[in-house]
Amino acid sequence: MLKSTIRKLAMSTAANSLKIVPNRALTQNLSKDVWSLTNEAAAVAAQNSRNKNRELINLGQGFFSYSPPDFAIQEAQKALDSPMVNQYAPTKGRVSLLQSLKQLYSPLYGTELKAENVQVTTGANEGILSCLVGLLNPGDEVIVFEPFFDQYISNIQIPGGKVTYVPLHPPKEMAQRPTLGTEWRVDYDELRRAVTPKTKALILNTPHNPVGKVFTREELLQIGQICVENNIIIISDEVYEHLYFTPEFTRIATLTPELGQLTLSVGSAGKSFAATGWRVGWVVSLNPDLLKFVAMAHTRICFSTPSPAQEACANSLQVALENNYFETMRQEYIRKFEIFTKVFDELGLPYTKPEGTYFVLADFSKVKIPEDYPFPEELKSKGKDFRISYWLVNELGVVAIPPTEFYIPEHEKVAENLLRFAVCKTDEYLEKAVDRLRLLKNYM
Amino acid sequence: MLKSTIRKLAMSTAANSLKIVPNRALTQNLSKDVWSLTNEAAAVAAQNSRNKNRELINLGQGFFSYSPPDFAIQEAQKALDSPMVNQYAPTKGRVSLLQSLKQLYSPLYGTELKAENVQVTTGANEGILSCLVGLLNPGDEVIVFEPFFDQYISNIQIPGGKVTYVPLHPPKEMAQRPTLGTEWRVDYDELRRAVTPKTKALILNTPHNPVGKVFTREELLQIGQICVENNIIIISDEVYEHLYFTPEFTRIATLTPELGQLTLSVGSAGKSFAATGWRVGWVVSLNPDLLKFVAMAHTRICFSTPSPAQEACANSLQVALENNYFETMRQEYIRKFEIFTKVFDELGLPYTKPEGTYFVLADFSKVKIPEDYPFPEELKSKGKDFRISYWLVNELGVVAIPPTEFYIPEHEKVAENLLRFAVCKTDEYLEKAVDRLRLLKNYM
Repeated sequence: MLKSTIRKLAMSTAANSLKIVPNRALTQNLSKDVWSLTNEAAAVAAQNSRNKNRELINLGQGFFSYSPPDFAIQEAQKALDSPMVNQYAPTKGRVSLLQSLKQLYSPLYGTELKAENVQVTTGANEGILSCLVGLLNPGDEVIVFEPFFDQYISNIQIPGGKVTYVPLHPPKEMAQRPTLGTEWRVDYDELRRAVTPKTKALILNTPHNPVGKVFTREELLQIGQICVENNIIIISDEVYEHLYFTPEFTRIATLTPELGQLTLSVGSAGKSFAATGWRVGWVVSLNPDLLKFVAMAHTRICFSTPSPAQEACANSLQVALENNYFETMRQEYIRKFEIFTKVFDELGLPYTKPEGTYFVLADFSKVKIPEDYPFPEELKSKGKDFRISYWLVNELGVVAIPPTEFYIPEHEKVAENLLRFAVCKTDEYLEKAVDRLRLLKNYM
Repeated sequence: MLKSTIRKLAMSTAANSLKIVPNRALTQNLSKDVWSLTNEAAAVAAQNSRNKNRELINLGQGFFSYSPPDFAIQEAQKALDSPMVNQYAPTKGRVSLLQSLKQLYSPLYGTELKAENVQVTTGANEGILSCLVGLLNPGDEVIVFEPFFDQYISNIQIPGGKVTYVPLHPPKEMAQRPTLGTEWRVDYDELRRAVTPKTKALILNTPHNPVGKVFTREELLQIGQICVENNIIIISDEVYEHLYFTPEFTRIATLTPELGQLTLSVGSAGKSFAATGWRVGWVVSLNPDLLKFVAMAHTRICFSTPSPAQEACANSLQVALENNYFETMRQEYIRKFEIFTKVFDELGLPYTKPEGTYFVLADFSKVKIPEDYPFPEELKSKGKDFRISYWLVNELGVVAIPPTEFYIPEHEKVAENLLRFAVCKTDEYLEKAVDRLRLLKNYM
């Protein structure tokens, strides 16, 4: 019986015609993502004759070049010593972390939050996905401001949602002078026209990656009004909530009771504690009836979030609150931006003066890049910024992200001369980056 | 402007009519899941007069009552000392872990695996979800053997898939005598009839939770033949791969080249190292063209997997391979089952003699549970086993899982007298459980 089955299998012709039809929504664009392209280009560029004897300066992906604070590392190591902390956490999150998050956010929300207002997720990315999977039905529409963080798009598509793009209009003089995040503007009529009876949610990102914009109270009220009128759930990606350099950071959920009921706010331990590899995030909402669907989705997507890392975050948040850690971090980042952006001032290269996040967009219109530079074939179908990025890493050994990846192809013209630099690096590393970028004057 | 906007918002009546329509597929069954129900019932039961002065014995959820091995804890603590290990891992997984997994699996697959054959995921749960999200289009059908691990169902529904249930037929004498996993059988004609042109994948689970069945080579060839003939992708959940007590554990991917091309095999560090809270899993496939869609989905679902835990697993696998750790674990579990199942032999309660996993199903038909016991309202719509479980924790202080949760309502009759016990506990704890369960003789 066994042998005859094997024989039959060997004779089967069906296997030779194995055709894989993958998820169409997820795989419709099979070209490589910006992260893979940039990292691969950097790996190759590191070997060229110009880079061989110098360090590659990586300001591409937003990971930290330094460790989480000592207190966080110690809490993480301590957490592992407790047997039960190594086992499944409750799907809602460890009690200790829910408690710390309540302490962090209650004053910011101006009300005493309960455990039902908080859901721990496996990073903010899975937090946003859990919001979308918990709420969307196939065909539901989600409004996304452009430029957008690329993960939003597939996270909308996984449960069958459709994306509606609404532009953040860039400053007209972006290529002429340093501009501010506030100069990137929403056209509220345009936003209103994007709403249809199928619009289920809107994703907001403030402080905004890659623009560095911190939405003002006034802007959030205008956007919020449209959402309230149309019963649109707001998914507010606030992972850079501690990195704002404006006088205040406004949370849309806190503006009116109606907005509180409509909003899911997403936070990140990775961004808060320089620990992007820990994968701990959370969703906060004043509306537990809304948050419970996020919880249901999270339970099905990841079941539970890494438990030792949760315990470490719970205790680290306590230390952070006692020591004013987030304010110190904010001051550090003001300094980091000062160190880094001076090179653009010196060169006269326009850039977006960051109001928040750890990113800065610089405009390379004035840099002369040879048209006949030997660009690889796979970059020819991409925006011009992909070629600027390729040239920069090959000529100067500096890695930066081409931001047209945050646009749909029809709109990428807006960003084709821009590059995104991450400053979540040591001051010393940023100084080295400045020295290297000074070489740009030879190409201007 | 600001004030008028606030006024308008306050006047808005739309907010008062906020209606949340959640994801229907995910939330169609709003009754509580078995894990929440069981844990909540246990928390309440712990306070009753019978349990007040004794320890609650929890053999419910499959978490370990003991720590991961010392070497794994040490590796995890060491990993945190390295700055870059705290940042994003590559989406494919840390190079060190891919390397260790290749070393673990190459001899088991009888071929030299490459990095392209392995994808790290955030636990096996997210691994299975990534397989399904990477491959399914709305309306695609997935065959699942019943009883099934409950997460499979929502993981199929998230990308719009449909579940087709095929029974594992239980032993006829299940209520009369101890039975074997091999006595739970697939009717291959029934399986063949379940296949339609829309059948995209089949989820296999071996060793099987909760039945403890290890599918034989012969059974896998029969199932595999149907999959090969119909171009059905096999998602083989092998998270209990080190916990088999049969002479061999057969991996369907290794049986024929055709099956290797069709199969995605899912593994778990949590089950391997008694660290269910670490959330590290993986998918292995001899077919990189199939696995790449899993990788794409994983990148969008979780972006990357916790990095320090990956590094810990990479190094722990090395230690495990050098020290024959998995064979030692297997011997320990043979002993654990001997310790635990003796109480059922003493009482004459039939149970499934485990061939694999750390679960055992016991048949409670012979236990007399008062019909008029004060069961809570929410259990009345559930299978009888939910009431047996409730009675057991309240009367004897022992937590066990009602397995009808692993059946669709139409079929739950099969399991209504069964309870699932987890033996992933210390020997001492299992001895306590045995003492407590001996009290069942007062109810027989």
